[in-house]
Parts: sequence; structure tokens; C-alpha cells
Amino acid sequence: MARVDSALYHQKGGGLFRILGEMTAKTQEKYPGRPIVKLGVGDVTLPLAPAILEALHAAVDEQGVKASFHGYTGNVKKLVDGIVEKDYAQRGVTISPKEIYVTDGSSAEIYNITDIFASDSEVLVPDPAYPAYVDVNSMLGRKIHYVPCLEENGFIPQPPDYKVDIVYLCSPNNPTGATMTKDDLAKWVAYAKANGAVIVMDSAYESFVMDESLPKTIYEVEGARECAVEIRSFSKTAGFTGMRCSYIVIPTDVMIDADDGKKVSLRSMYVKKRGVRSCNPSYVVQMGAAGYYTEAGHAQCMENTRYYLNNGKVVRKVLQEAGVPCIGGDNSPYIWMKCPGGMGSWEFLEILLDRYGVVMTPGAGFGPSGEGFMRISCFGDADETKRGIEYVAALCKEIEGK
Amino acid sequence: MARVDSALYHQKGGGLFRILGEMTAKTQEKYPGRPIVKLGVGDVTLPLAPAILEALHAAVDEQGVKASFHGYTGNVKKLVDGIVEKDYAQRGVTISPKEIYVTDGSSAEIYNITDIFASDSEVLVPDPAYPAYVDVNSMLGRKIHYVPCLEENGFIPQPPDYKVDIVYLCSPNNPTGATMTKDDLAKWVAYAKANGAVIVMDSAYESFVMDESLPKTIYEVEGARECAVEIRSFSKTAGFTGMRCSYIVIPTDVMIDADDGKKVSLRSMYVKKRGVRSCNPSYVVQMGAAGYYTEAGHAQCMENTRYYLNNGKVVRKVLQEAGVPCIGGDNSPYIWMKCPGGMGSWEFLEILLDRYGVVMTPGAGFGPSGEGFMRISCFGDADETKRGIEYVAALCKEIEGK
Repeated sequence: MARVDSALYHQKGGGLFRILGEMTAKTQEKYPGRPIVKLGVGDVTLPLAPAILEALHAAVDEQGVKASFHGYTGNVKKLVDGIVEKDYAQRGVTISPKEIYVTDGSSAEIYNITDIFASDSEVLVPDPAYPAYVDVNSMLGRKIHYVPCLEENGFIPQPPDYKVDIVYLCSPNNPTGATMTKDDLAKWVAYAKANGAVIVMDSAYESFVMDESLPKTIYEVEGARECAVEIRSFSKTAGFTGMRCSYIVIPTDVMIDADDGKKVSLRSMYVKKRGVRSCNPSYVVQMGAAGYYTEAGHAQCMENTRYYLNNGKVVRKVLQEAGVPCIGGDNSPYIWMKCPGGMGSWEFLEILLDRYGVVMTPGAGFGPSGEGFMRISCFGDADETKRGIEYVAALCKEIEGK
Repeated sequence: MARVDSALYHQKGGGLFRILGEMTAKTQEKYPGRPIVKLGVGDVTLPLAPAILEALHAAVDEQGVKASFHGYTGNVKKLVDGIVEKDYAQRGVTISPKEIYVTDGSSAEIYNITDIFASDSEVLVPDPAYPAYVDVNSMLGRKIHYVPCLEENGFIPQPPDYKVDIVYLCSPNNPTGATMTKDDLAKWVAYAKANGAVIVMDSAYESFVMDESLPKTIYEVEGARECAVEIRSFSKTAGFTGMRCSYIVIPTDVMIDADDGKKVSLRSMYVKKRGVRSCNPSYVVQMGAAGYYTEAGHAQCMENTRYYLNNGKVVRKVLQEAGVPCIGGDNSPYIWMKCPGGMGSWEFLEILLDRYGVVMTPGAGFGPSGEGFMRISCFGDADETKRGIEYVAALCKEIEGK
């Protein structure tokens, strides 16, 4: 008799954005005429850059001619060359093309890398964090350790005094917007090397780092090649949430233990598993992503990034003027604000939605330490974002009795 | 200390097409001037149909305008409507849009569905079969039962007299080209229902079925809705090997056991797992696939299918005239031929490659019962296919001493 996997069956959670969607729909039903202001889901709203559109059209044309048609496609060389040169070599980091695997999204890759490890691996997750880190591991029945990211240390996770096997990090952070310095990352590299742990570095928001003193990749830290994989995405960098393209870097130096006492390269196990899945994204999509690495493509995408960062500036300014504590938004597309009057995240959202039709993501959905906070996405339309955050500020002032 | 999963670490096999690639490269080095004739890997060679190109260009254009831009995308309605109507309703089968999940390729989906089941599930795989069925399950450390598909029953798998939890079927078959009748499928549906097993029906080659008396989907068999999921792909149907689009049908009626004695719908567990992976393919790719369901798109794709089937006719004719036993190629894009003189698959390939530079896939790579056979792909260029198969026939005659 076919049976469901027990860990998957009993897994709770997931569905943060589903619940958010359901609440939004209910509000729309209650106030049919009133528009919803979306500051919730981190989904881009600006169209693709002209250079990327051009690359996509050209790739579609190639697929229409027998001589240039591409069937099964691995990594597209043009894309990988761009990654190696622009994302790494220009930061003084040497990554070989064979250490890069192009994939169809960060979320899928967070999942794909996870079950290469022994099922009883212990996992460390910053709290709050992107829910997928917990979801994919709890589906495998693994023990999860939360490292609280607190106000007093700027929401930056600090290495603990116990051992784990896998560490998830995300900088610039989702949901807090906090960005780790090279020293912050160095502490984790030291921890990983001392404990034989592997760091899964989620760098989905790297392109929002404007402060030149901040690292753009964990490989700027010495020793990271021996203990870290890095996942990057074109979702926010190039507006690809609907296009699906990301990549993972697995340095050949990352070695893990096998049950026969041998050391085995993580990359070789990844390749073995990937070999049965053929999950390279579409040739056309990869060629579109390669458009990001052209001079025009990069400049156009950076213009979009600045548009979103400008939303962040506006949000911070309005909140700060209203006396609402918040961080993020300068080197990241998310702002993390404290709910007024010691209110809980979901409670505040309910009032905000009902009163003004504004959606933000409850911090509690990202982990226990997120309770009492809200995540504001800066990926919306500028006018809508300004209107929404002004409602938020007004409500905060009202609740605080200011 | 991070450790690799033991089942993955010890898993053997995989790499059939990698080995084939390496052998081909060696031959090319040995005979640098001589062209290689590719009858090995099942990869399409004709360009995309004009209606699909048009749909792709239009979708790219949509992504360039803020008002029509698509970020995170689930199932594209136009595509799912096409599937429901053209692939099912027109065959008299009712499938609801909510039972369909669009994905980025059959291989990925064979993997994704697999680990929803308990890790100690027992699995039945026809022998020979597409290697992924064995690979994904052996990576999970599962017991695999092989059902030999023999010449005497036309290479059609027959239900065994023992129980398993998961059954893989593929019709038209890869590698043998054998196509199951409705009665053949009905035997398996009866077996699955009697034993509480779930059938994973791989219908990647459904569009090659020309014989109107043959089923196009397992849901033409009564009761299949309660025990079967069906995976279909645009890879061969619409030339999408490089575009990546497929779908899986999971009827709401398929129930499996949970460890607390309850029954749970397979679909709900699939949705839960999928929720953390967001693996819908690109909006642009889905819109391209929707182009297949237009009248023009379908006609153009069928023209390509007939081109490949005509390769099959030529291959069969040449082999039959040379007295080489073979099946498939009439309702399928693969032909399964017996090696001459009782020769083993790899041995025959070595001679064929060295003498004529022709690549075919050794039957032994698809399972123990494949030994002594070769799989011929009909997805190549017509002239090249004819030239290649004439070499094969000549070699067979020589070995047989005819």
C-alpha cells in the first residue's frame, strides 16, 4: 500500500504567503471598491530591461531555425562567462565555470542542495528568516536550531556555542533587510570550518548592496571556498520572478564526510543528484539572463534596482518621521518595522488591512523572533508604496496615541 | 560535521548518456575528419513551430511593459485550458484544471513525485526502462523490483504476483517503442487498485500514437483516476527539450496511507511539497507551450511528429530488409533492435562507432533485459538517419555472415 513520507505528512508551517493571499481576498470582498496596496509579497513590478528583452527575442529566433536550434541545454556559456567575470572576478574572487550550476530559482535550489546531506543533519537557521529554510528541512524531519537575530545586534545572526551540520545565511537579509559586513561573515566561516559545517549562503538580494565597503559575495572572506555554497538569483536582480533563473556556486574545495570514513566533494554529490533531474532552465531564459551581463543590460537593471531602493528611502523617511522604529532599505529591498504599541504582527496586519487595505508581511511568519515586526517590500509601484506607507504611519501614530 | 546522505553516496549507475558522450568524443578524436551520425540521445532536431515562436515573442513583449508584466506565475490559465480541453476532454476524459501542475520537465517531475512517498516504499520498474525511474529511487535507498519486458509478449510489462507501492509505466515506451493497449493498461490499473499501489504513468511520447485504437492517456481506463498520476512533456510533442515544459496530472481521487492510519490525498501532499519550491516554469515558456494548443500550433507540431515517424519507417524498412529483428517506430519515436550474432549492446556499439561513426544507445543501459538490444532514436535529420541505419544494416549483415 502506497504511504506518504511521515516527515512530509506531519510537517507544519509553510503557507505564509498563501494565508496572506487569503486575508487579502477576504478584505477585497468586504470592501469591493477599495484598492489593495501591496507592500507584502516580494515580487518585482517593473518590466524587463530592454537589453534583456532583446536577448530573449534573439534566443527565440534562434530556436526557429534548424541550424541554430538548441535541444537539451546545460549551462549556457555566455551566461556562465558573465557570472564568472562580473559577479566574481571583478570582486577579486576566482570561481571556475565548472563550479557554477544554472537553475530555475533560488527556492528550488535551497531544496535541491538540502537533501544531499544525511537525513539526520542538524540545521541552523537565523530567526527570523525566509521560511523555505525551515520548511525544506522540517520536511526531511531534521532538527532545526534557531539563532535569534535581535535588535541589540542590528538583527545580524551570531554563531552559537554548539555544533550543527548546515548553516543558512541570507544577506542582505530577507525579511529584516540587515546586511552583513565582511567581519560578520568571517565569524561564520570560522564557525563552519571549526565545526565542519557547510554554509548555504542565500545572496538573492546582493544587487541591492550599494555600500562599497560591504561584501557582495561570501567568497570575499578567506576560507569560504572550503565551507560555503552560494545561491544567487536573477529574480530581484533582473526582474526574473516570472522568468525563473538562478545559479548556485559549489566550490570544488567543499568536502563532507561519507559513512565509510572517506571525504567526498559536495560538488560531486550535487552533480550525481542533478544528473537525473536535468533542471537547467530554458535556453531562451538563460540567454535572457545573459543579457544582464551586457553593459546596457546591467545599467538598465541597476536603474530598476535604484527605483526599488528609492521606495525604501521613502518608506524609511515616512516611518522615521512618525517615530516608528525600522531598519533595512538602504542596501536591501526590505524594511523591517516594529509594530506600534507592542502589538503582535498578525494583529497589526488585520487592523491595517481592514482600515486601509494595505498588505505587509507579518514578521511572525518568518520565525518566533519576528513576532511584533512587519516586513515591508519595496518592490511595488512608487506612488502606491508612498500612499501605503503613509497609511501605515498614520495608523502607528494613532495606536501609539501620538 | 556535514555528512552526505548514504543512499545518494552509494548509489551506482546513472550516466548512461554521459558514457555515450565520452565514447563519441573518443571516436571523434580517433577519426577527426569523419562525421558522427547521431541515432543515440533522444533529442529533437527540428526548430520550434511558427505558432509557438509567435507565442513566445508575444509573451516576451508582454514582459517588457509594466501593465502586462508577469512576476511570480503559477499555472498559466491559457496553457492549462488547452491541456484540459485538447489532451483530455477531446478523449472523453474529465480532468479538472486544479489537478494539473505545470513543471519544467518530465525528469524533474519523476523525481519530485517520488520522495512524497515513504522512504521504504517498494518500487516496480519495467525492464528495460528510462534509467531515471531506477536512479531517483535508488538514491532514496529503495528496493526496486524489475519486471522483464520480453520479446514473447511484445515487450509489454505484465503485473507480477507480489505487492509493491509504486509502479512506473511508460507508453509509448522508452526505450523499446512498444505501445500499451487499453487492455494492457487496464491490467495495471486492476493491479494497482488491488494492491493499493500508485502508478506513475510516463506519457512523454503520447503524441506519437497514430493508431486510433490505442489509448492516449491512462485515464481512458476506468478506475485510473483512483490510482494513477500521469506525466506529460512538451519536449518531444512540441520540440521543447531546450525550452523545458511539462505537466503532471494528480487526480484528487488518489489517496495514500499516512502513518496515523488516516488516508491522505496524494495531491495535497504534492501541493505541500511544491509550495516550498515554486517550480512553475517561466511565464514565457508556458505561453510558448500554450501555442501548441492553437490550431496552427498543433498542426505544425504534428508535421514535425510525422517527420520523426517517417524516420522510424525508414529505419524499420532498412532493418527489416537486412533481416534485423526490431519493434517500435510506428506509434513511437524509438526503435528497439536486436544486436546481430548474439552480440552484447556495448560490444556492438563499439564496433559500430569505430567502423562507421554511428551512435545508438546500448539497450543494456536501460536495464538487465536490455542486454543484446540497441535503442535507435528517430529524432535526427532524415538524411543522416537514413545514412546511419544503412551502415547499421551493413554491419549486421556482415556479423551475421549474410
